[in-house]
Amino acid sequence: MITDRIKNKELLKCIGTPNDAAELIKDGMTVGTSGFTFSGYPKSVPIALAKRVKDGEKIKINLYTGASVGDELDGELARVGAIKKRFPYQTHKDVRNSINAGKIEYVDAHLSMSPQMVDYGFMGKIDVAIVEAVGITEEGYIIPTTSVGNAPTYVKNADIVIVEINETQPTSLIGTHDIYIPEKPPFRQPIPIIHAADRIGTDYIVADPKKIKCIVFSDIKDNIRTVAPISETSRKMAGNLIDFLENEVKQGRLPENLLPLQSGVGSVANAVLAGLKESRFTNLQVFTEVAQDSVFNLMDEGKISVASATSVSFSEEGQKKFYEKIDEYRKKLILRPQEISNNPEVIRRLGVIAMNTAIEADIYGNVNSSQIMGSRMMNGIGGSGDFTRSSYISIFTTESIAKNGAISSIVPMVPHCDHSEHDVDVIVTEQGVADLRGLSPKEKAKVIIENCSHPYYRPFLKDYFKRASQGKNIHTPVLLNEALSWHERFEKTGSMKIKTDKSNSEE
Amino acid sequence: MITDRIKNKELLKCIGTPNDAAELIKDGMTVGTSGFTFSGYPKSVPIALAKRVKDGEKIKINLYTGASVGDELDGELARVGAIKKRFPYQTHKDVRNSINAGKIEYVDAHLSMSPQMVDYGFMGKIDVAIVEAVGITEEGYIIPTTSVGNAPTYVKNADIVIVEINETQPTSLIGTHDIYIPEKPPFRQPIPIIHAADRIGTDYIVADPKKIKCIVFSDIKDNIRTVAPISETSRKMAGNLIDFLENEVKQGRLPENLLPLQSGVGSVANAVLAGLKESRFTNLQVFTEVAQDSVFNLMDEGKISVASATSVSFSEEGQKKFYEKIDEYRKKLILRPQEISNNPEVIRRLGVIAMNTAIEADIYGNVNSSQIMGSRMMNGIGGSGDFTRSSYISIFTTESIAKNGAISSIVPMVPHCDHSEHDVDVIVTEQGVADLRGLSPKEKAKVIIENCSHPYYRPFLKDYFKRASQGKNIHTPVLLNEALSWHERFEKTGSMKIKTDKSNSEE
Repeated sequence: MITDRIKNKELLKCIGTPNDAAELIKDGMTVGTSGFTFSGYPKSVPIALAKRVKDGEKIKINLYTGASVGDELDGELARVGAIKKRFPYQTHKDVRNSINAGKIEYVDAHLSMSPQMVDYGFMGKIDVAIVEAVGITEEGYIIPTTSVGNAPTYVKNADIVIVEINETQPTSLIGTHDIYIPEKPPFRQPIPIIHAADRIGTDYIVADPKKIKCIVFSDIKDNIRTVAPISETSRKMAGNLIDFLENEVKQGRLPENLLPLQSGVGSVANAVLAGLKESRFTNLQVFTEVAQDSVFNLMDEGKISVASATSVSFSEEGQKKFYEKIDEYRKKLILRPQEISNNPEVIRRLGVIAMNTAIEADIYGNVNSSQIMGSRMMNGIGGSGDFTRSSYISIFTTESIAKNGAISSIVPMVPHCDHSEHDVDVIVTEQGVADLRGLSPKEKAKVIIENCSHPYYRPFLKDYFKRASQGKNIHTPVLLNEALSWHERFEKTGSMKIKTDKSNSEE
Repeated sequence: MITDRIKNKELLKCIGTPNDAAELIKDGMTVGTSGFTFSGYPKSVPIALAKRVKDGEKIKINLYTGASVGDELDGELARVGAIKKRFPYQTHKDVRNSINAGKIEYVDAHLSMSPQMVDYGFMGKIDVAIVEAVGITEEGYIIPTTSVGNAPTYVKNADIVIVEINETQPTSLIGTHDIYIPEKPPFRQPIPIIHAADRIGTDYIVADPKKIKCIVFSDIKDNIRTVAPISETSRKMAGNLIDFLENEVKQGRLPENLLPLQSGVGSVANAVLAGLKESRFTNLQVFTEVAQDSVFNLMDEGKISVASATSVSFSEEGQKKFYEKIDEYRKKLILRPQEISNNPEVIRRLGVIAMNTAIEADIYGNVNSSQIMGSRMMNGIGGSGDFTRSSYISIFTTESIAKNGAISSIVPMVPHCDHSEHDVDVIVTEQGVADLRGLSPKEKAKVIIENCSHPYYRPFLKDYFKRASQGKNIHTPVLLNEALSWHERFEKTGSMKIKTDKSNSEE
């Protein structure tokens, strides 16, 4: 029944079609939506909006979201060229291609900063907010679905709010959310989270119900993600990382049950969490952006006691299990706004162990997380900076090579730096672990080359470092005319591999 | 009288000579000292230690401080080659030269992170702490002098503590300090600072008095800094910055009395603060690392109501006035540990306006704060990352050229990145202001080149950007074979200037 979903009677009169809702969106507007990964983003309204463009209307909007979103939003709008500016993160191939072709202006921002950038007025006015919801409370407040993201901030700042009630999302999700939006300075108070499990807010997004101008219904499920089987390389990386953590416990630098874990999204993250299943660690806490299948599998195993995130994102099988066991998971899962899930204040206080994926790292520990060869946007910085910069230990994983060895992920100099040498504690590849804490740049270079680089590239890195060290300023030895030559070679020849007659090895 | 300075009777038996104290320091030890800028660092003990080396003893230590320190510590020890590793910041020419010559391993770290890196055990064991003090309380607790820095953390973690009571530091300093050290995770609590003026700790460093093994007396004054007269260029930069702030107030993005100000050390910072004197702003708050002359001058003018810092640092005249008026200043000055003065949690909560100096910025807004031409250490990242990354607005100032135009401070690509494009909101030169908020990389490039670069270099930057934009991936247009060529040319010819027959101008 509709009244099960919309408990505020006044708002029943706002029910409309996706097309009615899309009509509220005009060319040039800035639209802020719910959604973080393939979860909890509006679907039927953007499809209707894209259709108007296909039918010949000229509409270009600034699309602000929580993070990446699914095809019904990013894909539909990108393919019809309806996105002018995109903020703060994306992973969709059609959006990415448009960004790299110069057709979309992409503002790639720290995910925890993005809501306050909007709230402070730095991103311009929000004309319309679109929020996917489980339902609306008697007071007219909005209950989000499988992600919170930036929805509360967009609703707060928008002139008009569109609610898209997704009937595939059960009302049993109610109670997983914990909505808390910090005041603006100078009125901001400490965020009162002391443990990953702490609830500090409300189950719903508080907003003036008068701003809600249209409520539509949708039955389009969240996109699911295909989880690749764990490769041998990922397993090795995960093993190296878990060995490192075990040694930290042994050395007294981490408690027996570690500290709250953050892990990026993807196959290495999955392998690490799978590795934790085999480890002796128990009673683990997760304080991260996205809770994926592996988090819930570890809950089932009794390994994880609580998971704080801003989104859940699943495989088909994982999604099915999640809804089946939602009454159990609800006690252990907290979905927060990304301003809180990724908040540096809380991350530093809790002592979160940050585990993120690097595209590449250089021999001094600078990390590129976003731009391939310095110019080609992959996804964006996402939450990696939020966590890395304030973590207890910041760990980056990357396979030592990519594209079957045509790319070395350890390079003389990164052509784009998202995380500086000052922010990166540990680099893990399938080759080994470089523990950079307390090392000078020269000391870092030795341990990164030795422990993390691929054996094919290692002699070339050693040779570069040796020759650079013969200069007159050798705090951070650099050969300016050669530092980016590996990337240049890749762009020209399709490979970083160095063609030599003689062996360059100095091992 | 000695008992005015040492109120704990048990500790009177620990009084010794600087040489007695220096004898406690052995080759290979890690020594953590008080001191931040030229203030509050131990002086007589390191002089005595250096003398032992001059006399033929082999001593090399790891020297950990708060930040930069004066000649009696950094200079004396560097000149005799007694520093093996240096952490976390320095500005002394002899130390810098040794770093760049590869003789000192320098660990250049975020200043707010440095104490927890020690406390977490990431920097190894602290053998000896040396703290410059005003005195010792009845309980045996240590009262610091003109800086707090990392002294509380070193005292907490050291096996042995040496106290150097500086008789030039009046006991009227007591009450300026506010010592609070966060617990380690998972026991850490919110830092209860809601306003820059909040006091949350004690007047003294709490430590087990049994660890104090030697107390010495010294009468060597803090080093002073020569404050250069404000140049026309600095005045222009300051004017541009203040115009920007005034417009933010006008646009409703900042309150009438702004938000707490942080400013780096140096001539531009001085010019900005001098400019504020002429501005309409009143009731300003300062939440920064170092309170210099200009802060106290603005207090005298009634413009600044409170200053939170970890150190005071003065010109000769400023120092004299500070001690004369200390009873007045004590009500408005709070000296905190650098873990708190620079704490991201507090900075983000208060909404601090961060104003730091860049060595150079690239056309996409990445900033180099530490390494000239990518390899030559200048000072270090210091607190710039602490403030930039968590600020309300992060502003970088730099003159558009250096070395009489031989260097452009706006370059195609920084050869070392301390603050990424994601962290830099505004760049100010004497040419103008680039407001980068909400812009894509291409949009940033246009406004940085147009508003901030020097007219000589502007056409060359435009030409670079235009040619880079003709590539196939144009989210962040880069020419890998040319991006570092300006720095390479400087290293070869002593100038970034481009010798051309024809004009490259496209204006």
